[in-house]
Amino acid sequence: MTEQATPLRHDGRQPADLREVRITRNWLDHAEGSVLVEFGRTRVLCAASFTEGVPRWLKGKGTGWVTGEYEMLPRATNTRGDRESRKGKVGGRTHEISRLIGRSLRAIVDTKALGENTIVLDCDVLQADGGTRTAAITGAYVALADAIADARTRGLIAQGAKPLTGSIAAVSVGVVDGRAVCDLDYPEDSTAQTDMNVVMTGEGAFVEVQGTAEGEAFDRGLLDQLLDLATAGCAALTVKQQEALEGPAREREL
Amino acid sequence: MTEQATPLRHDGRQPADLREVRITRNWLDHAEGSVLVEFGRTRVLCAASFTEGVPRWLKGKGTGWVTGEYEMLPRATNTRGDRESRKGKVGGRTHEISRLIGRSLRAIVDTKALGENTIVLDCDVLQADGGTRTAAITGAYVALADAIADARTRGLIAQGAKPLTGSIAAVSVGVVDGRAVCDLDYPEDSTAQTDMNVVMTGEGAFVEVQGTAEGEAFDRGLLDQLLDLATAGCAALTVKQQEALEGPAREREL
Amino acid sequence: MTEQATPLRHDGRQPADLREVRITRNWLDHAEGSVLVEFGRTRVLCAASFTEGVPRWLKGKGTGWVTGEYEMLPRATNTRGDRESRKGKVGGRTHEISRLIGRSLRAIVDTKALGENTIVLDCDVLQADGGTRTAAITGAYVALADAIADARTRGLIAQGAKPLTGSIAAVSVGVVDGRAVCDLDYPEDSTAQTDMNVVMTGEGAFVEVQGTAEGEAFDRGLLDQLLDLATAGCAALTVKQQEALEGPAREREL
Amino acid sequence: MTEQATPLRHDGRQPADLREVRITRNWLDHAEGSVLVEFGRTRVLCAASFTEGVPRWLKGKGTGWVTGEYEMLPRATNTRGDRESRKGKVGGRTHEISRLIGRSLRAIVDTKALGENTIVLDCDVLQADGGTRTAAITGAYVALADAIADARTRGLIAQGAKPLTGSIAAVSVGVVDGRAVCDLDYPEDSTAQTDMNVVMTGEGAFVEVQGTAEGEAFDRGLLDQLLDLATAGCAALTVKQQEALEGPAREREL
Amino acid sequence: MTEQATPLRHDGRQPADLREVRITRNWLDHAEGSVLVEFGRTRVLCAASFTEGVPRWLKGKGTGWVTGEYEMLPRATNTRGDRESRKGKVGGRTHEISRLIGRSLRAIVDTKALGENTIVLDCDVLQADGGTRTAAITGAYVALADAIADARTRGLIAQGAKPLTGSIAAVSVGVVDGRAVCDLDYPEDSTAQTDMNVVMTGEGAFVEVQGTAEGEAFDRGLLDQLLDLATAGCAALTVKQQEALEGPAREREL
Amino acid sequence: MTEQATPLRHDGRQPADLREVRITRNWLDHAEGSVLVEFGRTRVLCAASFTEGVPRWLKGKGTGWVTGEYEMLPRATNTRGDRESRKGKVGGRTHEISRLIGRSLRAIVDTKALGENTIVLDCDVLQADGGTRTAAITGAYVALADAIADARTRGLIAQGAKPLTGSIAAVSVGVVDGRAVCDLDYPEDSTAQTDMNVVMTGEGAFVEVQGTAEGEAFDRGLLDQLLDLATAGCAALTVKQQEALEGPAREREL
Repeated sequence: MTEQATPLRHDGRQPADLREVRITRNWLDHAEGSVLVEFGRTRVLCAASFTEGVPRWLKGKGTGWVTGEYEMLPRATNTRGDRESRKGKVGGRTHEISRLIGRSLRAIVDTKALGENTIVLDCDVLQADGGTRTAAITGAYVALADAIADARTRGLIAQGAKPLTGSIAAVSVGVVDGRAVCDLDYPEDSTAQTDMNVVMTGEGAFVEVQGTAEGEAFDRGLLDQLLDLATAGCAALTVKQQEALEGPAREREL
Repeated sequence: MTEQATPLRHDGRQPADLREVRITRNWLDHAEGSVLVEFGRTRVLCAASFTEGVPRWLKGKGTGWVTGEYEMLPRATNTRGDRESRKGKVGGRTHEISRLIGRSLRAIVDTKALGENTIVLDCDVLQADGGTRTAAITGAYVALADAIADARTRGLIAQGAKPLTGSIAAVSVGVVDGRAVCDLDYPEDSTAQTDMNVVMTGEGAFVEVQGTAEGEAFDRGLLDQLLDLATAGCAALTVKQQEALEGPAREREL
Repeated sequence: MTEQATPLRHDGRQPADLREVRITRNWLDHAEGSVLVEFGRTRVLCAASFTEGVPRWLKGKGTGWVTGEYEMLPRATNTRGDRESRKGKVGGRTHEISRLIGRSLRAIVDTKALGENTIVLDCDVLQADGGTRTAAITGAYVALADAIADARTRGLIAQGAKPLTGSIAAVSVGVVDGRAVCDLDYPEDSTAQTDMNVVMTGEGAFVEVQGTAEGEAFDRGLLDQLLDLATAGCAALTVKQQEALEGPAREREL
Repeated sequence: MTEQATPLRHDGRQPADLREVRITRNWLDHAEGSVLVEFGRTRVLCAASFTEGVPRWLKGKGTGWVTGEYEMLPRATNTRGDRESRKGKVGGRTHEISRLIGRSLRAIVDTKALGENTIVLDCDVLQADGGTRTAAITGAYVALADAIADARTRGLIAQGAKPLTGSIAAVSVGVVDGRAVCDLDYPEDSTAQTDMNVVMTGEGAFVEVQGTAEGEAFDRGLLDQLLDLATAGCAALTVKQQEALEGPAREREL
Repeated sequence: MTEQATPLRHDGRQPADLREVRITRNWLDHAEGSVLVEFGRTRVLCAASFTEGVPRWLKGKGTGWVTGEYEMLPRATNTRGDRESRKGKVGGRTHEISRLIGRSLRAIVDTKALGENTIVLDCDVLQADGGTRTAAITGAYVALADAIADARTRGLIAQGAKPLTGSIAAVSVGVVDGRAVCDLDYPEDSTAQTDMNVVMTGEGAFVEVQGTAEGEAFDRGLLDQLLDLATAGCAALTVKQQEALEGPAREREL
Repeated sequence: MTEQATPLRHDGRQPADLREVRITRNWLDHAEGSVLVEFGRTRVLCAASFTEGVPRWLKGKGTGWVTGEYEMLPRATNTRGDRESRKGKVGGRTHEISRLIGRSLRAIVDTKALGENTIVLDCDVLQADGGTRTAAITGAYVALADAIADARTRGLIAQGAKPLTGSIAAVSVGVVDGRAVCDLDYPEDSTAQTDMNVVMTGEGAFVEVQGTAEGEAFDRGLLDQLLDLATAGCAALTVKQQEALEGPAREREL
């Protein structure tokens, strides 16, 4: 009854609701794994590229490498942003998110089992409406799983090896108009007092917790509420990922 | 009858055939004009950004500016390419195509009529299978037309002004296995003896002719055949553009 | 009694102990505020530069700006690192920490009260032994307080204005050998299963929580333990800051 | 009679006339081949550097490499331009012309016959008055021929091998005041409605055709006229090159 | 008699002899002043560009600016060097010499008398055989004098103003095979134990003295010998400059 | 008596006096050699990093390498300077001084005796008050001596080998208010008519002489006075270095 009384969010959602999530596998023909992931109007293209060999500093150690690169198309946002390639340098935010994606995915990869192979997760934001980094991580996991399956089919990964030790999903939570909510879109994100991105395994453990007080500092009680929302949100995304992965693997021309 | 006798191209096309062309308008929510253009498996996202004002060197001259930026996503191609933003510099090919796109579109824009406004055409190749620059130009024209219509609706362009003086389309032609063909895909492009990109107005006049002998130099007779194929190909693309533009304009939230 | 039984940390500390903290104010002659802050062998020079005026994008809004720049001297670490100036680009980690410092300090600054003035916090790591970013934030707060006091003395800040709305301190916590500990030094940091940096106000509220599972993902119980340790650590650092600020302000030659 | 009636060009030339062309071989003491080429007041220094070995991506394939680099001295033009080295990036136009030079020369080089050797053609514009890229290609061919002869003398190329399969020359043509003309100088170039650069072999076949409508799009008839002019211009330049190459080869100190 | 006994230098010169010096004025058509200066086989093109206005940091101070930019063409030297524009950064040596050229010329310019005008001296080494920086300074002075005369003719400098307060020349001296010699060519320079570049006014006073022990450190006696040689060498160059400037000024098309 | 009559310098020194010089060894825990050197308020941290191996171009020649890198912290000076890492390029002055430091130290190192090892001298200016480059060289010598002693202890240098062939010190001299003075501080430096940096061996021979007329050109008599002052200043600094080196070597944890 009381819940009924609280006003809905600007787009009609309850505080704990995710936006509509769509995960389209095999969106690209060339990549070993590829996903167009959509969290509402946020649209990120995740491509997993599997290559034999590892960066120089890892050679001969019998271990693989997984890394991420994030970037936004110039007109992903409401007003056009300059291309980082034209500016000649990668911005701090782009660096930060790229590192977060790589770190998150490595948390569920057994690089020994991967062998001396490299997987790069390219996450390019085609359209941005809040939560691009969490959508990217959520989609990248699915692309990664496809790329590993593809490599196994091609005999590039040892038969019994299990490079994937679990699944990973991410969601943003925050305080908007004094209320904790899940999966903020841009209008919410830009007015949030606190903003937190949480990456969790499919089993419900934390991989990354990144919370920032945009306005006032937050207390432990609020922090707890946000962690609860994130836990539920990631669990729902994990289900979406599993559903997507139950579909047929793509057929690649070899 | 004789045509029947010549072997078909590797994908079953006749020499003068275009691949399947799809022009999807309003693929993005934020941009003033946006098109996902597909020439077979080549897929380019064209976003037209309209902004008031012009670059510093044009200020106060009462004239607008139209420019293009082209880039490929790292996994658009069969093997992953490094991001130009990470390399810290834009490659020669990217520069060249960006300049070509801008120049081609300015050929059908009356910058006086545009007023002191700027339109940037961002052409990002999501998937590459030959002909990315010609697909980009063909799609960018439609995005440009939409952005200009949108600006007129918003009162940003003078009432009677006609910034668009015509339409523009582009196609590649080349010599493959000793035979002149139109709209080469990647397998054809990579073995072509001669490769030519042609940009033409909707009225059939030439805006750009860029021909290169990859292998042997070509004679005037072959050049004439290529120009004929290009003329027909651009005419067919012009029809596709018109059909696309007859659909409803997008409704933007203002 | 049981606590007595648990083994001490490799340097003799209890799990909740900070290293020896030293805050030396006015270490530089030119800067408006400057602090050499030491957390054990970690040594960071924090300089606060106060300048009139704000970046272009803030002009005329009647509000000030506070930002941070972090960098490590090449031989701060055990093996020499290349200078970012020579590499021609700022690394992702440097970007990330610089942004964290600026964001943290802005959390306790009322930029309206600051007026159209800019304060840059330069945090240069002279020697690194773990916890450089948290030492930097803790020291930068003291340098910032001195710079604001200096500006007030010089009449650059309005008489009744209170740009500082609180104090800020930061500490790292983590899981080492399966046990939650506070203020990790480098040997601990490099073997930690989980690593968390926490920034808190002097009043005990959270400004930033950045936790990363380096090895296994962590559960909610462990997360709670880490937050407890961080809360106590930041409180102790707040006392150190207050003691340092009770000393005499430097006398600058005007 | 009718020709008499049409007005001469601003410098007294007939539409099909080249400017005075001078090709001075061996202008430098160190380079394996070097030419100062002048098309009227346009003055380009072309140096061919022969080095044993090839870029990494070509190693072990038994084939050589030929490439070009074009650049303008800052005061080659009427007003000083900034150096690209100081701007920290190479401009699009410079990239484009460098690529054109390399591609054009490779059209008449049998890289198998060259063996695993590299020739770089540096084309530096000392003074610019229109047609710098066509002068550069025309001069670079002569420098290339000298460098190959020099390498043969030194025994760096196999005895019977013929790396040069032909000669190459280039000229600009365009439409000025409604009339097709050959070898435009800067005053003509800057007012041309259409501008085309054509690279041809000594045997009269096309290697590159790059035409751009600066103003109005052009029709097939005009295109044909321009190609005729270019064919005649390149033939005349081929004669100049042959005359230059009949002089004595330089004597290099070994 | 004893001098007769000492062996000549490798090219037949006496220790105090300069190489053959040629100063060709007006080598370029566009620049306000331009000189091709040759010290033996060293060949530097010096262009003086006069522009109205000064860099931002000098605006409104009623004073002008003179600066220099030095660069070597890639094949100026015996083996090809990479272009700094392609490397994306200017090397230390290039920076150092550019700064030396600017500083040296400012020593004989009254920037107040110059008014708010800028003169850039571009010194591009077309061929290098030792002494490029001293040839550049010696030639740049003549180009500067011409540019100032040209500006006076055009009324860009106040009638009675005398921006030039003297003349400047430069020479290298060094210790080769244990003997002090003047104006080293590349074979001498590359084996010199000590290398010194000296810039002097036409009146014989020192502007720059830059001496470096390449091998053994040198004592005061040797330093004195080198300074004597440099004084005589600069005096001889001053005469060459005066002779060159007595020729007719160029006629520029206005 | 006459000396008594001449006015003292602005800080009470006689013309030949150095500022107070402090050399603190082992200021860092990680570096093989490290010195905090102070010339009055100028404070430079010199770290010597010894690494096995040499740059690629020296490999296999049985000879070592010594180089220097100089940089200023942004708030070393009275007003904050931008970081070179953020600007993306190293400035000319920084380049120039880095090269000077490396060259100076190589003058007293026998690189054959060093074996295939590299020593980098990082000289970071923590606070600048004139003479930063001479303080850097003077301190770097002590750090270098410590790094070599440390390498010998660890057996990284052959037993009888003597990589150090002497000692090196540096001082600035100049003409202030028409009078030659030694070791200029910033107020003197910024008003000096002539400024000279001199690097000398402990035995009193010259390694570098770099004099610049900031205002009027200087004559030979003045040059001689400056060289006398520099000789005395370097001798005094050599004594300070020896005293510092007589203290105990640091104990490093191996």
